Amino acid sequence: MDFSPKFAITTGPWNYSYTALRESRECVIAIPTVDLINQVVGVGTCSGADTDKFEKFGLTPIKGQHVMSPLIKECLANIECKVIDIVKKHNIVILEGIAAYYDSSRKEKRTIHAIGDGTFVVDGRKLDRRKMMQSKLPDGV
Amino acid sequence: MDFSPKFAITTGPWNYSYTALRESRECVIAIPTVDLINQVVGVGTCSGADTDKFEKFGLTPIKGQHVMSPLIKECLANIECKVIDIVKKHNIVILEGIAAYYDSSRKEKRTIHAIGDGTFVVDGRKLDRRKMMQSKLPDGV
Repeated sequence: MDFSPKFAITTGPWNYSYTALRESRECVIAIPTVDLINQVVGVGTCSGADTDKFEKFGLTPIKGQHVMSPLIKECLANIECKVIDIVKKHNIVILEGIAAYYDSSRKEKRTIHAIGDGTFVVDGRKLDRRKMMQSKLPDGV
Repeated sequence: MDFSPKFAITTGPWNYSYTALRESRECVIAIPTVDLINQVVGVGTCSGADTDKFEKFGLTPIKGQHVMSPLIKECLANIECKVIDIVKKHNIVILEGIAAYYDSSRKEKRTIHAIGDGTFVVDGRKLDRRKMMQSKLPDGV
């Protein structure tokens, strides 16, 4: 959300994640890369209500420092988050990132973007417009 | 937001867009492709409060059918939206798309994703996992 370390995500009572977020008030946002595409789709098409997703998809949990939710070792980045509000009217959960980890040793850094119809777009090349944008970026970015 | 034609965007009183959205209760989401990167950055680094962005960046306004806000001819897609709510506490504006246009005649279809630090990632290749996701997709997607 803007340049703050906050995230707005959409979910609702139809997802087990919603119950888990409401009860634990915390979570980890884990960012996978393209080599994990089949695990990503698998994780997204079953439910934590009846499945141990770490076991089923061969993922390795790592203990977090500020939240009980585990980080995922195989992911490029992990962000420990606290739920700071739930906007029930719109099924929006507001998260605040309180710690972030980035695995700079990984060779594959391309992430994937769900289109919503079962297809995904992989990161392509990067364009640098930092000079043009300098006036709009907060200090330190 | 989920599979509905709704969008949650983050903005606030520090942007002229916020005033415009609050007063007009409508807008157009225009989706540019990578060949428009310099116009995108230009549009994002000046303000509609004192600049005619269409004129300055050589963009062509097209009249919408349901909203007063103009569509952008040079964009790959345009979505006419109504503001259905503003969650002031979190500076979130909830939009509902009421009409969408897609220019299928354009050759360049790659969109760009702002990282937030002045760099942008261009769409790379597409992966198809529709079969794996079938059970989770709503009818008609």
